[in-house]
Amino acid sequence: MTEPVDVQGLVARVQRLEAAEKIRTLIYDYAFHLDMNHPQLLSELFVEDCEISYAPNFGAVGREAYAKTLDGIGSYFVATSHHVSNTVIEFVSDDAATVRSVIYAWHRYSRERPDSYVWGQYRDDVVKVDGVWKFRKRVLCNAGSQDFHVKESNPIGRA
Amino acid sequence: MTEPVDVQGLVARVQRLEAAEKIRTLIYDYAFHLDMNHPQLLSELFVEDCEISYAPNFGAVGREAYAKTLDGIGSYFVATSHHVSNTVIEFVSDDAATVRSVIYAWHRYSRERPDSYVWGQYRDDVVKVDGVWKFRKRVLCNAGSQDFHVKESNPIGRA
Amino acid sequence: MTEPVDVQGLVARVQRLEAAEKIRTLIYDYAFHLDMNHPQLLSELFVEDCEISYAPNFGAVGREAYAKTLDGIGSYFVATSHHVSNTVIEFVSDDAATVRSVIYAWHRYSRERPDSYVWGQYRDDVVKVDGVWKFRKRVLCNAGSQDFHVKESNPIGRA
Repeated sequence: MTEPVDVQGLVARVQRLEAAEKIRTLIYDYAFHLDMNHPQLLSELFVEDCEISYAPNFGAVGREAYAKTLDGIGSYFVATSHHVSNTVIEFVSDDAATVRSVIYAWHRYSRERPDSYVWGQYRDDVVKVDGVWKFRKRVLCNAGSQDFHVKESNPIGRA
Repeated sequence: MTEPVDVQGLVARVQRLEAAEKIRTLIYDYAFHLDMNHPQLLSELFVEDCEISYAPNFGAVGREAYAKTLDGIGSYFVATSHHVSNTVIEFVSDDAATVRSVIYAWHRYSRERPDSYVWGQYRDDVVKVDGVWKFRKRVLCNAGSQDFHVKESNPIGRA
Repeated sequence: MTEPVDVQGLVARVQRLEAAEKIRTLIYDYAFHLDMNHPQLLSELFVEDCEISYAPNFGAVGREAYAKTLDGIGSYFVATSHHVSNTVIEFVSDDAATVRSVIYAWHRYSRERPDSYVWGQYRDDVVKVDGVWKFRKRVLCNAGSQDFHVKESNPIGRA
């Protein structure tokens, strides 16, 4: 004897699994376009009224302002590599979620200075707009860094 | 012409996909609570009769004993960052699975000594208890390390 | 009022989610068998007529030729650790996909020389053969490296 299946409910569950895949792709596309120096494609991952904080006094409100903070990253670095893992998604609704992930970033500079490293966490609010998942809010918190050119950072809040 | 759909079977398959998501969240929550210095939340990720081995002669049997091994980690490190990836889950049943993942860990000490690094693998047995996935057994095996304060380690078993 | 459910379509969507899990396992099994020094198991992850490029003039066409390039890796390194993340899968069909991922690799040599690091990207074509996902093409592109014994590399194509 088997219990009757809630097929509508099953569809909703599959949709959520698919949404999780798409949100992870968003998180990883960000790293990809950053490392590939695609500032235009990077800013398109954000909604119009987005908020970004890389550090206190280093971020942007709104996609246009964000695009400006990306100016110059192409020539500042010779190469970067952003390794994102530990991605945990919590759905607020079918169209909104909070996401926590961990970032290990390596940077090689155009100027003569040592490679730098950042170990941190991304804390994101993502939303689905016209069927596409985008960043509404992205905050980078640093557990620590080595030789990084940005001296201030948002703390992870270690107890 | 389409073959008839086994809807009950489909439900079971969706459940397994959802279980995989939850198991990954367990693996990543461990890293999160470790880096955030949340020893209480960390120990709650384990079942009562758990087994943990970080190295030969460094581990615990039972959640209470495990909680004691966590004493002092908060003051020993200024910061840590645990980056877990390559997570592969093999289900033993609907309520049990073995999990293999890879860990890159960075540690900054409270004492004056160089940052340390561990490159290794977690090998886990996880179980679903009262609807919640928890660690039954967690073994850390080191591929290698640099400047790490723990000198012994479980080998990965490289051929 | 609910719309009727396309159950056949739902099955196809679940299959795709399951395929994504299996493709990720393929990507992570490669790293596992590399670090465990399992050259035989490594080559079995590839189809017969595979193509591999680790660098210009360093790769193989065909599984047999690939197996030969793996000769000696066991004694060349004391230990390696390959950390793969940012895995993004794009399906071409039910049996074929392109995959992009990011790799952070650490190597400790048998000879007296410093540990080396590679930060890069894997770009893969994977195919499902007799129900099993395998690599058809695998290209490693380096964002950068440190102390690595291979001096040439495929570029990631940073703009």
